[in-house]
Amino acid sequence: MRKSNWSLSTIILATALAMLFSAISCQRQDTEADITAIKEMLNQYSVAVNTGDFDLWISFWTDEGIQMPPDTPARIGKAQILEAMKPTFDQMTLDIAITSIEDAKVYGDLGLTYCIYTFAVTPKAGGETIIVIPDGKALTLYERQTDGSWKIAYDCFNSNVSPTRITI
Amino acid sequence: MRKSNWSLSTIILATALAMLFSAISCQRQDTEADITAIKEMLNQYSVAVNTGDFDLWISFWTDEGIQMPPDTPARIGKAQILEAMKPTFDQMTLDIAITSIEDAKVYGDLGLTYCIYTFAVTPKAGGETIIVIPDGKALTLYERQTDGSWKIAYDCFNSNVSPTRITI
Repeated sequence: MRKSNWSLSTIILATALAMLFSAISCQRQDTEADITAIKEMLNQYSVAVNTGDFDLWISFWTDEGIQMPPDTPARIGKAQILEAMKPTFDQMTLDIAITSIEDAKVYGDLGLTYCIYTFAVTPKAGGETIIVIPDGKALTLYERQTDGSWKIAYDCFNSNVSPTRITI
Repeated sequence: MRKSNWSLSTIILATALAMLFSAISCQRQDTEADITAIKEMLNQYSVAVNTGDFDLWISFWTDEGIQMPPDTPARIGKAQILEAMKPTFDQMTLDIAITSIEDAKVYGDLGLTYCIYTFAVTPKAGGETIIVIPDGKALTLYERQTDGSWKIAYDCFNSNVSPTRITI
């Protein structure tokens, strides 16, 4: 009887310790998978922009997401982002190219990418293509959701060249 | 004898569980302290800029820190940041005002602030004050160091107003 009591408590202890180490181990293993996931999300961001799929694009943001474009105030929350960006998607054919992902990291439930990109728009009604950002950089933060997916919490971006050097 | 065995194993089990819950609890308690710490660091960033203390200012960055200013390429690593910013500190009296910290969060070993600020420079050799950013926003990321302090890993910023509206 004494032996079986020891076994039971040993099993409980071993289970508790296993859960603890498993949690630590899982966190490490997930990082590589998480980095792959946020890189893929950045790729899907481009696909949504370039196919003009606004519903897909807006779905990538958290409800409290903050978009920080240059030379205009931040758009705070998905509703403001929608209001600001829907007309652009409606009126323009968009062309974004992420030329390189310079950095991708995950810290627990927060992921980040730092990428280099170009961005151009062409009015659907006709007219010249406007190269809005011939060479730009973006710092994008992703929050892990309860279902394990990632959504954009912050996107801050600007140009690598002075506006006077932009050729339209 | 059986009773004492149960007690010993119960104590071990209780200790293991206590460590687990303590770790979770600690993480929660630290968050408030961490948020206070990164807000204070942002405040010290302003102090270093406004007192022209370049050595203090550059010490806030991680060795791999990335500064992402508008209209110029990113500065990658402390050496590039130093090379780009030292002449500005040497030649100008700087005036940054963080008018509000809109958001401050900590995710494990990564902290972030989103702030609104103004930035002006006055040549030390004499001349008019130039309002570089009359109304700007910054997304700043801080990494926890092994000694518990925080350093800046990323700083991406831009203006809230179009360059044509900047009054010099």
